[in-house]
Amino acid sequence: MTIDRASTFTPATEATGGVDTLEKTAITVAHGDGIGPEIMAATLRVLEAAGARIAPETIEIGEKVYLSGNTAGIASESWSSLRTTRVFLKAPITTPSGGGYKSLNVTIRKTLGLYANIRPCVSYAPFVATKHPKMNLVIVRENEEDLYAGIEHRQTDEVFQCLKLITRPGCEKIVRYAFEYARSHGRKKVTCMSKDNIMKMTDGLFHKVFDEIKAEYPDIATEHYIIDIGAARLATKPERFDVIVTPNLYGDIISDIAAEMTGSVGLAGSANIGEHVAMFEAIHGSAPDIAGKNLANPSGLLLAAVMMLVHIRQAGVATAIHNAWLRTIEDGVMTAELQAEASVAAQRTVVGTDGFADAVIARLGQMPKRVAPVAYTNPAVAPSWVAKPLYTRAKPARKEMVGVDVFVHDAQCSPEFLAGRLSTLATPALQLQMITNRGVKVWPGGFPETFCTDHWRCRFVARTEDGHIAHRHIIELLARVTEGGVDVIKTENLCTFDGEQGFALGQGQ
Amino acid sequence: MTIDRASTFTPATEATGGVDTLEKTAITVAHGDGIGPEIMAATLRVLEAAGARIAPETIEIGEKVYLSGNTAGIASESWSSLRTTRVFLKAPITTPSGGGYKSLNVTIRKTLGLYANIRPCVSYAPFVATKHPKMNLVIVRENEEDLYAGIEHRQTDEVFQCLKLITRPGCEKIVRYAFEYARSHGRKKVTCMSKDNIMKMTDGLFHKVFDEIKAEYPDIATEHYIIDIGAARLATKPERFDVIVTPNLYGDIISDIAAEMTGSVGLAGSANIGEHVAMFEAIHGSAPDIAGKNLANPSGLLLAAVMMLVHIRQAGVATAIHNAWLRTIEDGVMTAELQAEASVAAQRTVVGTDGFADAVIARLGQMPKRVAPVAYTNPAVAPSWVAKPLYTRAKPARKEMVGVDVFVHDAQCSPEFLAGRLSTLATPALQLQMITNRGVKVWPGGFPETFCTDHWRCRFVARTEDGHIAHRHIIELLARVTEGGVDVIKTENLCTFDGEQGFALGQGQ
Repeated sequence: MTIDRASTFTPATEATGGVDTLEKTAITVAHGDGIGPEIMAATLRVLEAAGARIAPETIEIGEKVYLSGNTAGIASESWSSLRTTRVFLKAPITTPSGGGYKSLNVTIRKTLGLYANIRPCVSYAPFVATKHPKMNLVIVRENEEDLYAGIEHRQTDEVFQCLKLITRPGCEKIVRYAFEYARSHGRKKVTCMSKDNIMKMTDGLFHKVFDEIKAEYPDIATEHYIIDIGAARLATKPERFDVIVTPNLYGDIISDIAAEMTGSVGLAGSANIGEHVAMFEAIHGSAPDIAGKNLANPSGLLLAAVMMLVHIRQAGVATAIHNAWLRTIEDGVMTAELQAEASVAAQRTVVGTDGFADAVIARLGQMPKRVAPVAYTNPAVAPSWVAKPLYTRAKPARKEMVGVDVFVHDAQCSPEFLAGRLSTLATPALQLQMITNRGVKVWPGGFPETFCTDHWRCRFVARTEDGHIAHRHIIELLARVTEGGVDVIKTENLCTFDGEQGFALGQGQ
Repeated sequence: MTIDRASTFTPATEATGGVDTLEKTAITVAHGDGIGPEIMAATLRVLEAAGARIAPETIEIGEKVYLSGNTAGIASESWSSLRTTRVFLKAPITTPSGGGYKSLNVTIRKTLGLYANIRPCVSYAPFVATKHPKMNLVIVRENEEDLYAGIEHRQTDEVFQCLKLITRPGCEKIVRYAFEYARSHGRKKVTCMSKDNIMKMTDGLFHKVFDEIKAEYPDIATEHYIIDIGAARLATKPERFDVIVTPNLYGDIISDIAAEMTGSVGLAGSANIGEHVAMFEAIHGSAPDIAGKNLANPSGLLLAAVMMLVHIRQAGVATAIHNAWLRTIEDGVMTAELQAEASVAAQRTVVGTDGFADAVIARLGQMPKRVAPVAYTNPAVAPSWVAKPLYTRAKPARKEMVGVDVFVHDAQCSPEFLAGRLSTLATPALQLQMITNRGVKVWPGGFPETFCTDHWRCRFVARTEDGHIAHRHIIELLARVTEGGVDVIKTENLCTFDGEQGFALGQGQ
């Protein structure tokens, strides 16, 4: 096969959904480590040829910055570029092995509030071999909270704890984003996945917010799956999903599953969207083993750049590049690591990083013939991050304190012994109601088979007249209990919010 | 096809790995709801024909018990049967819709300490259609702790919390079980999956215990995957896994994925193993829509019963039933819901629940011809739950308190304002070191882009001479802070254990 380098292409200035921006948009670019520099060069070359109106500013991130003693992998002066351009096209980086280096992605996501991780997962069968030829879905993963808040405490000799935090603004922002994304990208259904049959309060909030917000999008079909069933369905029948919205940890797991099911993780781009800044990158790593050999596939970064172009209102250019890329894949032009199915293997032409970029450039202005072409629409406002606020704080509820869970470290005691001791030490305002160990009630009325660690949750409830307590009652209890020699390790207040109980019962309570 | 009802079968009294028990073993049986009674009848009929030496005691669980007003779905007198026989063969049940009913499985698992959930996931291609013809793996899921402790608290108007608890005994028990299982079942590799790149303390403990215990099993190959990569690999290349051991939540997700990938969730049994009691069941539900129609497939419960027979040292009978079952599937005898691949579809004979049991009984004593036969070995001790303790408590570490995280509910404040207030209210022993919001440091030196909820974690560290504090210092701080009008919602003590820091740094700290 020969690549038709004579094909001419006039840069687009109109997108299907409105006129592209004509001024150059400043973007921040990082060339990264390993294969980063070569795939970024290829990507920028395609963008230039397609007439993308961008003004890249380069920052240094990754291995060299880490090794210079910066544990975050990004120099402090680089933040100002990100804050100014508010658009970041990022190549993969290498985090040096050995302790003390923090994940640059986590730092950037959390510091800049990039709350949404967008992962399109698309199959290109038969041009790329896959067991799931009809996949075309997008995972919208919450990106800031859940267990990734990183709040961990060793509690006792035996017990370690991580806090899972799920917040109303976090849920509202990501769920609303998912519906807005579905609508602006012509997608028909949003599936929510959570584990609210077990985590009724945290995941229950996520599901509840999903139900609240879906009512505002009657044009979009919706459904909810318990994450284990949903993930199983995704792994076997991905064609039945369109947009999936889910908390951070589940999103992390299912987005990797879905990407790998398409047949190649080398073809997927992703976006990390915040209210102020957005970051675009390939989902793969820096592959140092093939760096500098002109072997790497620039497709993941190129498709991330396509998402970036839509974000900065250059949907026309984005559409042209994406269709040229689809045509390239269809024509069998691919880097060495990709496998086509047997039916089209004869058409396969293996090229290097540069050759692949050339092939895409040669096809600018052409449409794919067998797979459906794409047609992006510019966002209604420019840039999209100044759209209406995704979250408005509601009026606070009437909160009443009604008790406190006191957690105790004790390797020697039995539940009965501890209960006796705590009952003696209780105060006029607070009485011991139950003790659990790893969530299972062990007093009163526990079972002898329950295995007990050295970590006891002791629930005290108000015995005041109105059933409410004040902070001083908790402090009084803590003083009595600790003076009595009990090793208190943490507390969790028990509250009602507008009369509704803000705490779960113990298993067996 | 005709079923050869004339075939005779002599009950086995010897297993490949030692003599089966000859006395009848008492087991507790629950017939369940929906299709439960018919698949249990079919299963017990096969067990009897195969010469299983069991003495079933029947208990009532499920829908009727729930609707009689018992929120746990199991009558209190049924516990004594479970405690006496210590072996439970359970049919699926229906949990009535509407609130207040607790998961019976969660109650049984937690109350009786069934710490290990064992899920074999096997493909039977081409006899059962699947995209993954070479799967033959076992997932060993931790069953008691992790986020399933069910300890949830609403913290503020905006923030809900669930505690993830990972314990050393929990990790040691499940990891040791996985290696013992691998060894006794002739499996060659144990793969650990965790998310210890993010949850360095909790999942870090799981991974660390895995590394400690694997050294005791040099005959078994080992590997570790970050759960997102591991799940992706499982969903695309399941043939590369053998035994997988993982914490509760990840195990919940990947065991459903793997089961569905085999082509049918109707063929899989599972075991829930404790130190005192073990429960065996199909992984599917009670399917009320086809109940009583002689349509249900009894295979899941039958293969669960096979696991039970091995557990009670009747490996010979277990082997005979399993091989007869494999031969039945191979012969194309199946219930209506199963799909065979095109190459063997002509051999397919659709039967009902009863007919399937007849077909298995007719093949007792026969071996499969195309798929590998099974050969179970009796456990070294009888019964296996009195084997050496899976966990021995270590000597406690030297614990020193060095600070406290105080969590504050405030919808109005800025980080700087809160820091100023808390610094003023601090005590001689404790000073404010940092404030985070959803784990991201917002003081000192926060970023303006960080979205803040009404939930603040305020870290106070010792400014005593030796760097240590006592409980009274925390109580003194809490008194000062709450008297100053700050709404404290919880605390987490900061400790060192043998000098090692028992708490994570804030993101950006």
